[in-house]
Amino acid sequence: MSGRLSVVGLGPGADALCVPAATAALAAATDLVGYGPYLARVAGGQTRHASDNGDELDRARLALALAESGRRVAVVSGGDAGVFGMAAAVFEAMEAGPEAWRALDVEVVPGISAMLAAAARLGAPLGHDFCVLSLSDNLKPWDVVCRRLRLAAEAGLVIVLYNARSRARPDRLGEAFALLAQVLPPATRVAFATAISRPDESVAVTTLDRADPSLADMRTLVIVGSAATRLVGPFLYTPRSLP
Amino acid sequence: MSGRLSVVGLGPGADALCVPAATAALAAATDLVGYGPYLARVAGGQTRHASDNGDELDRARLALALAESGRRVAVVSGGDAGVFGMAAAVFEAMEAGPEAWRALDVEVVPGISAMLAAAARLGAPLGHDFCVLSLSDNLKPWDVVCRRLRLAAEAGLVIVLYNARSRARPDRLGEAFALLAQVLPPATRVAFATAISRPDESVAVTTLDRADPSLADMRTLVIVGSAATRLVGPFLYTPRSLP
Repeated sequence: MSGRLSVVGLGPGADALCVPAATAALAAATDLVGYGPYLARVAGGQTRHASDNGDELDRARLALALAESGRRVAVVSGGDAGVFGMAAAVFEAMEAGPEAWRALDVEVVPGISAMLAAAARLGAPLGHDFCVLSLSDNLKPWDVVCRRLRLAAEAGLVIVLYNARSRARPDRLGEAFALLAQVLPPATRVAFATAISRPDESVAVTTLDRADPSLADMRTLVIVGSAATRLVGPFLYTPRSLP
Repeated sequence: MSGRLSVVGLGPGADALCVPAATAALAAATDLVGYGPYLARVAGGQTRHASDNGDELDRARLALALAESGRRVAVVSGGDAGVFGMAAAVFEAMEAGPEAWRALDVEVVPGISAMLAAAARLGAPLGHDFCVLSLSDNLKPWDVVCRRLRLAAEAGLVIVLYNARSRARPDRLGEAFALLAQVLPPATRVAFATAISRPDESVAVTTLDRADPSLADMRTLVIVGSAATRLVGPFLYTPRSLP
């Protein structure tokens, strides 16, 4: 049997937000590789290789080695595997690994990313130009994060923040808000969207001068609006045209 | 019967990339509102209100009025309705319309956006920080587009371009490449992804100094890499960490 590797995004949590292509790739797999809580969402009798959060490259190497050995492997991410998920880690491992890994049958199956789920739940905050930044400084220096935040705000982009808060870096989100407040008006809308589509989902919409970083936990996506982002009824949205 | 309005993203084209929540919202609708070619993708006996491309606000007002009259309406977008789709137009129409529209039962159902489908097809080009810009100057001045392109390139972001080419503005993409070439190295990777997941899908990966704007048509998403974006085997990806 010739092996293959599917990198699959499960979406934000609800089964109704997992695309049929992902469900099919999972059902066709002999082996599942991923962070334990994501594997727990997948039904079926596949051999499971669960790992802790944080060792993405190890996980990617294991998946590639299993595919090379002839297994049909699905690497599982939450949301979309291509947006701060496992897909880039798989290609990093492929690049650093044996030549044979580059000839493997690899596909990436897209998923509903946390940002799309959060935006839909809130209204349409991503209705105009936007950017998507990870606040984590595990993989880039914090001064690069700060520079990108400043340039994005100066560009008038809506700003989506992944990895907005972690146990190891509890103060970074507050630093980011303070930096953005040097560029953006105090009334700029800020949304916290947590565990969207899961039973314990929550959302909060506030303003930059009142945004409390403790509203974010590790499952929270933060969206900082542009000057045009506003509420209509309960919905947060950014108009398509500039004011 | 009390009306409701679902704003639904169909995904990029393939049924396997349309989320079950969207399929369910379409099946529950009495009326479908949208651009004709998108409605043609939806099976069922719903009353159809097809329109030409370009009159999004008229379409949004029609949908809100139908919902107010008690119909169960689905407004249909390709990709994700929240990313340069119909969702923001619905909230614009709501804001400018009668007070009663703000109390309507409105939900947005997320979909696989063109950028997520294109990224998955290519590999993982959005594996690091990125921004998403519309090149259309219908809704904002061209000098704003240029300023955003420049700031995004200076920030080191991967740049996703929607509305990269239109019949009315055939030269804008070439102007955008020329502007980006003032900031980014000639070898910067550029990908053209057209009609992803449809029978006539195509992709092309080239470099900024060779990028030919005529590779883009109205169904093409363009991704301009960062300095780190590269190929491994046939896959285009951006590593998670800075070099």
